[in-house]
Amino acid sequence: MLNSLLPSIHTPADLRKLSAEQLPLIARELRDFIIDVVATKEGHLGASLGVIELTIALHYVYDTPNDLLVWDVGHQAYGHKILTGRREVFHTNRQLGGISGFPKRSESPFDTFGVGHSSTSISAALGMAIASKLQGHSKQHIAVIGDASIASGMAFEALNHAGDTHANLLVILNDNAIGIDPSVGALKDYLTRIKSTRNDFEQHNIFEALNFDYSGPIDGHNFEELCRELERLKHIKGPKFLHVITTKGKGLRQAEENQVKYHAPGKFDKISGDVLPKQYNAFTKFQDVFGKTLVSLAADNEKIVGITPAMLTGSSMKFMMERFPERTFDVGIAEQHAVTLAAGMAAEGLIPFCNVYSTFLQRAYDQIIHDVALQKLPVILCLDRAGLVGEDGATHHGVFDLAYLRCIPDLQIAAPKDELELRNIMYTAQLGLTGPLAIRYPRGYGALPHWEATFEEIPFGKAQVIQEGHKIAVLSTGTMAAVVSEALTKLGDATIAHVHFAFVKPLDIAMLRAVFTKFDRIITLEDGCIAGGFGSAIAEQASVLKFRGTIEIMGIPDNFVHHGTVAELRALCHIDAEALLKKLQS
Amino acid sequence: MLNSLLPSIHTPADLRKLSAEQLPLIARELRDFIIDVVATKEGHLGASLGVIELTIALHYVYDTPNDLLVWDVGHQAYGHKILTGRREVFHTNRQLGGISGFPKRSESPFDTFGVGHSSTSISAALGMAIASKLQGHSKQHIAVIGDASIASGMAFEALNHAGDTHANLLVILNDNAIGIDPSVGALKDYLTRIKSTRNDFEQHNIFEALNFDYSGPIDGHNFEELCRELERLKHIKGPKFLHVITTKGKGLRQAEENQVKYHAPGKFDKISGDVLPKQYNAFTKFQDVFGKTLVSLAADNEKIVGITPAMLTGSSMKFMMERFPERTFDVGIAEQHAVTLAAGMAAEGLIPFCNVYSTFLQRAYDQIIHDVALQKLPVILCLDRAGLVGEDGATHHGVFDLAYLRCIPDLQIAAPKDELELRNIMYTAQLGLTGPLAIRYPRGYGALPHWEATFEEIPFGKAQVIQEGHKIAVLSTGTMAAVVSEALTKLGDATIAHVHFAFVKPLDIAMLRAVFTKFDRIITLEDGCIAGGFGSAIAEQASVLKFRGTIEIMGIPDNFVHHGTVAELRALCHIDAEALLKKLQS
Repeated sequence: MLNSLLPSIHTPADLRKLSAEQLPLIARELRDFIIDVVATKEGHLGASLGVIELTIALHYVYDTPNDLLVWDVGHQAYGHKILTGRREVFHTNRQLGGISGFPKRSESPFDTFGVGHSSTSISAALGMAIASKLQGHSKQHIAVIGDASIASGMAFEALNHAGDTHANLLVILNDNAIGIDPSVGALKDYLTRIKSTRNDFEQHNIFEALNFDYSGPIDGHNFEELCRELERLKHIKGPKFLHVITTKGKGLRQAEENQVKYHAPGKFDKISGDVLPKQYNAFTKFQDVFGKTLVSLAADNEKIVGITPAMLTGSSMKFMMERFPERTFDVGIAEQHAVTLAAGMAAEGLIPFCNVYSTFLQRAYDQIIHDVALQKLPVILCLDRAGLVGEDGATHHGVFDLAYLRCIPDLQIAAPKDELELRNIMYTAQLGLTGPLAIRYPRGYGALPHWEATFEEIPFGKAQVIQEGHKIAVLSTGTMAAVVSEALTKLGDATIAHVHFAFVKPLDIAMLRAVFTKFDRIITLEDGCIAGGFGSAIAEQASVLKFRGTIEIMGIPDNFVHHGTVAELRALCHIDAEALLKKLQS
Repeated sequence: MLNSLLPSIHTPADLRKLSAEQLPLIARELRDFIIDVVATKEGHLGASLGVIELTIALHYVYDTPNDLLVWDVGHQAYGHKILTGRREVFHTNRQLGGISGFPKRSESPFDTFGVGHSSTSISAALGMAIASKLQGHSKQHIAVIGDASIASGMAFEALNHAGDTHANLLVILNDNAIGIDPSVGALKDYLTRIKSTRNDFEQHNIFEALNFDYSGPIDGHNFEELCRELERLKHIKGPKFLHVITTKGKGLRQAEENQVKYHAPGKFDKISGDVLPKQYNAFTKFQDVFGKTLVSLAADNEKIVGITPAMLTGSSMKFMMERFPERTFDVGIAEQHAVTLAAGMAAEGLIPFCNVYSTFLQRAYDQIIHDVALQKLPVILCLDRAGLVGEDGATHHGVFDLAYLRCIPDLQIAAPKDELELRNIMYTAQLGLTGPLAIRYPRGYGALPHWEATFEEIPFGKAQVIQEGHKIAVLSTGTMAAVVSEALTKLGDATIAHVHFAFVKPLDIAMLRAVFTKFDRIITLEDGCIAGGFGSAIAEQASVLKFRGTIEIMGIPDNFVHHGTVAELRALCHIDAEALLKKLQS
């Protein structure tokens, strides 16, 4: 690979010294560089490959970082990172202590706004544009947003506001017809129609209706078109909208052909482009346990429906979609709608399993309280990727859920310790609930070789003694039970009791009474934040029951956790077996 | 007033026995009845008057409750309530033990979906329509949504999904160009253009772009037009959109002329229509303290901006809008956008005071975590109407905020005890923050005759001993300090200490150490939920600091609180002076 130009680009100022004719060469080198690194280091591939030309053109035409460029979601920003001084550290992407996989303000002045969740870029860039105007700063403000992200409610809110201002804002729609899974929704069809009937839509398209100066669609891989149009737009006042068509995975045949798989393909052969076989794992991902269990249950219970906001593959809801397409709903990046849609379905007798990643459910918090819990509707919220998620980092950890859900009346909260318990909670839930249930479970593999056992009804709200003892009681929830077991096995001390709480709400008060009576020292362990979480619930009950012993709460401390492997991050947060062992020995 | 027909309408089935010619008479009687009751009992007037004809037409044409009618927000549903069996209890509206001011599933089968917060109706009705289809039920599904509500993101998400289905859904846009304050945003202008240029918009309007069968705009006060169009739409398949123009406050001159004031006018003369003078109150509402303080601060600090999502009048942000319109932003019902817009502004050096009612901030939860706190941006979130709000009931109490905010790293949380402390926290905040701050304060009047004192800088994170003592320590936060003072005055017991925590986060650990050392019995008091709230934070610290005494946590118990006066509800929740007195004497 001939990287003659790229090593000389330390900042976009260097890029701007190149001639327009040199841009395709830089694009080729940048693409090769990303493929080269991501092939072995893993990461988000397809999105970044799709915006190589757009990225170069933006930094070429605009005076970044004085001009403010906001990337939506940010997993397409690898090219941006490499061109803005992070080429030499790019191999540390998503690793502990390395650079983040997403734009991050603390990392670079070129990262004007931290992202990770979708659809925030227009709001942020509009805020910046207004700030510039009020402070008399002469800057350009550009939000780059994908077609899946722009369909989310908050993007519409921002467009609706921006169109009512004279803000110097350029919204660039990076339209590749796919998010992680193919985009859905009426707007997507509409964007396709704009593309195919361009000339018929001169005056009245949706963006023009919202007072944007619309232009496009243009080819997002054509430098001439891109640079000319961006240059022109620099001189147009007010809110502008540029529709750019790109191909996700552009430049790597397999990534173009299989865009879902190559969104984040894991390791692959950088020459052939083929994904390398995954390391053999005898176990099953919690995601697949969820997905396959849902299909089994749905086969016997026709009231069951599945809902996902744009996480069909990631959540393994795809199994339900394959088997029961008419009862499966991918609503796009629309967490708020997903939850209230589920409430509407439950109000009319269906049993909705609404699967939302723990971190994304933060987007539907009001809907859980107001539309689901307050009406005691039997919606089953499945919080995938609860706890620490690893390399995606601070924007993606699901560590707040126990705290933010626990205060909601009439909501039961389950955190199964393993695949079997997850299955049986799901099974029991669909037998008939009188109110809503949240089930949280982690990203990644379980540890049971045989999880497809016969379903068993589970007594809701009951804790389980895993190891008897009399000196210290360790109370755990969710898959932290395995961490406790690991520590206790290492310790080999039969005086220590271990109680697993599969239900954080309602808490098993009878069990707690027994624990408070028998033990003077209690340790709690969770893979969620300490503030307001499981241990906090135990401490509250200790107040109520006038427990006079000590409670040591182990969980995520009160700061944001960044990226690294799950094992590294658990160690950092002192919630691994080592940390528990140390505490037990102290 | 001649009420000849209305008393005979016990359910919509009775209504459907009338001839079309009798509908205007029913409309007159219904309007008079609402005016009659609301004039003395108070409540939401303007919105209900505006949809009298629409309400009657819907129940006349559709087979409710088999056909499912979902009202968005629901403060326009008085006519609906009266026609569906609640005429005789309508005088108990919003009172303790009486009917709710909003549709509520537990109250009537005609209330198909509980509402209170805006923009949920399309999601809910779509969920119902899908449920009907899957279960083979023959029903119609109608969402009635206002023009302010439809501009909110979640409504767009629902339209985007619905347009991609073949669901039997009718969305009725009740377009009166106003929410509580006049509607804002580009969509509002667009709707106005549709109205004025009806014939030019045959094919390509925004709703048609989203695959809805659009009709209208029609006159929402004309029974003939309404009934004919609704009848026609019953037979159209798939998602349909009917644009109806109404006048908020219709039928009461003053309410039509001053729509903001007559949204919920308080007591008024039912004959003249004039609002009656409010009972004299020597004190000032916290809202006005906020609004006027903001103006004072903004006059000296040009970096200050104000943001409100559609609560310009309610939050008293209107003072800022009057004085500094270019620095004040009413973004419409768009809490998500409001918070991230504030983050974007803060990223570029402004000092945004973003005022959102506590209950509505639930809509922007992810944005607080992801866009504000994670980036340590100095946004000042002002949570109006924190605690129990009274007559608006379960959908509007701001009782979860301490719990849902406390788990967010790097977010300071203040709860001032009175107007002066609110002012000084606001003053101190704009001097320079290194991260975000949330300030929560209640709805309604303060108790200080002179709150416009000179600003004083407040030490953030410090608690304050209000009364020394040695037997029991009462720890309070926010305006519950006054409740404690009242109880202690009644008790006249100098052995009881009272410490006020103006900051729930960071907690004053030095003060807590002293309290834990000195006292064996601690009582905490807050007007928020017990689970995860202020007392919970104290209990967590008690674990850390190995406090061996008892902590009794007084706060909102773990169930939804319904409507009544604030005093009644505080008594019900055992967080008033009486309850504290009782506990202190136990």
